[in-house]
Amino acid sequence: MKCIEIKSSQREQWIPITSQVEDAVRESGFLDGACLVYVPHTTAGVTINENADPDVADDLLMGLARLIPRNLPFRHSEGNSDAHLKSSLVGCSVLVPVRKGRLQLGTWQGIYFGEFDGPRRRQCYIRFLREGGNGA
Amino acid sequence: MKCIEIKSSQREQWIPITSQVEDAVRESGFLDGACLVYVPHTTAGVTINENADPDVADDLLMGLARLIPRNLPFRHSEGNSDAHLKSSLVGCSVLVPVRKGRLQLGTWQGIYFGEFDGPRRRQCYIRFLREGGNGA
Amino acid sequence: MKCIEIKSSQREQWIPITSQVEDAVRESGFLDGACLVYVPHTTAGVTINENADPDVADDLLMGLARLIPRNLPFRHSEGNSDAHLKSSLVGCSVLVPVRKGRLQLGTWQGIYFGEFDGPRRRQCYIRFLREGGNGA
Repeated sequence: MKCIEIKSSQREQWIPITSQVEDAVRESGFLDGACLVYVPHTTAGVTINENADPDVADDLLMGLARLIPRNLPFRHSEGNSDAHLKSSLVGCSVLVPVRKGRLQLGTWQGIYFGEFDGPRRRQCYIRFLREGGNGA
Repeated sequence: MKCIEIKSSQREQWIPITSQVEDAVRESGFLDGACLVYVPHTTAGVTINENADPDVADDLLMGLARLIPRNLPFRHSEGNSDAHLKSSLVGCSVLVPVRKGRLQLGTWQGIYFGEFDGPRRRQCYIRFLREGGNGA
Repeated sequence: MKCIEIKSSQREQWIPITSQVEDAVRESGFLDGACLVYVPHTTAGVTINENADPDVADDLLMGLARLIPRNLPFRHSEGNSDAHLKSSLVGCSVLVPVRKGRLQLGTWQGIYFGEFDGPRRRQCYIRFLREGGNGA
């Protein structure tokens, strides 16, 4: 199982990982099915969103922070329950179709690791799942 | 890879696609595993929810609009950052078990394409992933 | 297809199901790929989050209830539209990598069934998807 190493530099941050995932597909020789990108952490996540204007990533962080303020009356003593909730809402995996050895991302889609309680060293696992139809 | 064509008629809209996905399963002859429905857009999504009372779909749009108002102080110049955030929260894929050639949706579950920045022409990709156990 | 039976005791509740999913992997003899945990309900969901401090689960419920108050001006006559929206935001499936017969959860990760409109009897389906790469 391939593992990507990630180092975040801020508490909240989207880190683009599309090229690492593309490299993993190419190196594996995997052709048809889907690629699972899995985050084994509980205060981080992974999403697919706009790859062009970096303002979108900033807007997503700002919007999430408005939705889930850090100072809600949380009980968890580590003070990072906002990051746990963001992790469950954004999700800890994405599954992207692969065809003829290429990720089938849309034109404007990129894959982003979501750091919600950094800075930290993090990981992403990559797993390939086999096509079950005619593979076309 | 099967592709479903979708045409939305409003800015925000749930479009039922269960029957197209069921057709794709039947036409493929795929029997056991899971069906990935993948949206290659960054201002749309896909979800599974109530298939009976259309009020539920309206309630989901209204609830999302309350969560993520369009007039938050976003930076992205296209003015659709609310749609980008909805896309990341709702998600751009669903994965439904398939057994003996049938989607294993619950009694009240339907699959809905979520348009958050329409009206537009959109697509959904459909991919089948092979069962890895005994297939029972 | 394996089915886990769940009985919730409150309207809103996270029910840990990691050990049942681990049992299903072991009993199946499945070795490499991914495990799909699928909830066939529209007012419940499934997520992966902290398995250590139970305060985190309470914080997630409280945070969700703040995000999506039950008394928004919903139309659906059953009065549980908040639960439908939570289901779409949290999601009705998780997909966990499996390697050499073991779920590849992170150290602090557990799998939780999310009840948003209980108490009820519920189910979770478990499906295994086959590794498509070299399986390493």
